[in-house]
Amino acid sequence: MSKTVLLVYAHPEPTSLTRLFVAATEQTLTQQGHTLLQSDLYSMGWKAVFDEQDFPHRVNPERFAYVQESGHAYATDQQTEDVTAEQHKLLAADAVILQFPLWWFGMPAILKGWIDRVYAYGFAYGYKGEGNRYRYGDGILKGKRALLSVMVGGPETDYSPRGINGPLEELLFPITHGALFFPGMDVLRTHAVYGAGNLSKETVDRELTAWRHRLEQLFDESPIPFRRQNSGQYQQNMLAEHIAEGKTGLTIHIDD
Amino acid sequence: MSKTVLLVYAHPEPTSLTRLFVAATEQTLTQQGHTLLQSDLYSMGWKAVFDEQDFPHRVNPERFAYVQESGHAYATDQQTEDVTAEQHKLLAADAVILQFPLWWFGMPAILKGWIDRVYAYGFAYGYKGEGNRYRYGDGILKGKRALLSVMVGGPETDYSPRGINGPLEELLFPITHGALFFPGMDVLRTHAVYGAGNLSKETVDRELTAWRHRLEQLFDESPIPFRRQNSGQYQQNMLAEHIAEGKTGLTIHIDD
Repeated sequence: MSKTVLLVYAHPEPTSLTRLFVAATEQTLTQQGHTLLQSDLYSMGWKAVFDEQDFPHRVNPERFAYVQESGHAYATDQQTEDVTAEQHKLLAADAVILQFPLWWFGMPAILKGWIDRVYAYGFAYGYKGEGNRYRYGDGILKGKRALLSVMVGGPETDYSPRGINGPLEELLFPITHGALFFPGMDVLRTHAVYGAGNLSKETVDRELTAWRHRLEQLFDESPIPFRRQNSGQYQQNMLAEHIAEGKTGLTIHIDD
Repeated sequence: MSKTVLLVYAHPEPTSLTRLFVAATEQTLTQQGHTLLQSDLYSMGWKAVFDEQDFPHRVNPERFAYVQESGHAYATDQQTEDVTAEQHKLLAADAVILQFPLWWFGMPAILKGWIDRVYAYGFAYGYKGEGNRYRYGDGILKGKRALLSVMVGGPETDYSPRGINGPLEELLFPITHGALFFPGMDVLRTHAVYGAGNLSKETVDRELTAWRHRLEQLFDESPIPFRRQNSGQYQQNMLAEHIAEGKTGLTIHIDD
């Protein structure tokens, strides 16, 4: 069945590995009959910095408070056009793919600034004016899928379970769990390409093929089984004692 | 003894909690006789987005590759002035404090863009042209201290060891371990203020007092005991089998 996919990406060089992956994404999804929405952050000149210019019609002109202005601008339809456009794309999408190089173990600033600005109060948090009631599995983006496609400079070993950088999926937890699952999306396991700066033509082709196969399963794959806040597994926003008993840390929020 | 401290901060509103903390930092350190260097990213209009404009004198004008251009610009002293100025501040500092609101479990984009752009190849990574030889405890910033001072919107429970967001120190591992310890700095445990958007005047005063006391120990506190890459505890960039035996994840890189 034909779906709509939003592809957000962050690399200015058309011949970069990230952009080869973007081209493969476009081609594969279009061939499957899906509709593609794109946010090419560099070519859009996306404004990364979240500041007073985001709120031309302030509820409090005296003192600038982000959450207050964000909630007011969202509720009164006075957000900037670029932000509104991205929110509409998110709402129209059945799946969202973020494609980017891993910089200092996180998103490039331009992509972080897309999250910072588009994720308004009332939209991605404070949904329905009910504080934290809808989050982690519930929220405005519930029912959609999300997937990170990450180009990693270092070798896979360094990101392995005992690798010196830390396991990739844990380093990305603030994004997968904190930014994608938070407003309700089902998050697939991250698709990583390692040694990204220095791949042979053959390896690039093989990696692109693996990515195309992965994409073909976009709507069939099982997501990371993050525990839903409203599933009964949390008590006062802490994991109930009898679940993952005695354990702590990021991974207890995955139901293995 | 008098030291030099670099304070990098990211909030545009002078009356915000972040900026009250900045003022307290200034006052406390100055009273102690330290010299303060400051990077007020919003007022500087810091360019967050790392792009071709960072490299006016390209080694390869045909194809834009970040690592290549970064290494070339750094080695040939052709970086942009804003980046060079921040690198000089880092080199002059005995301690670096990053003060910011936690947005979507990470740094505001403007601060991430400070890392992305200032952390050049040859400087923060690829030190001495030797790939990954100097990192995690060794590197150009070795001997300096680093400290995150973070204003967190949510309650402390949500960031506790079994809290639904994940433990704060694990969410910040990509910054503490990945961005600060990586080029050699000794990282102190994060100083967090929770419920930051909604504190009474009394609580703010109490939190500022706690922060001042913390700052007085800046050069005396024991840092987080992250394991040094070149300490013999790693083999092929994985933690040696006999250390934290059978365990995986971010926290095995801390020597408890």
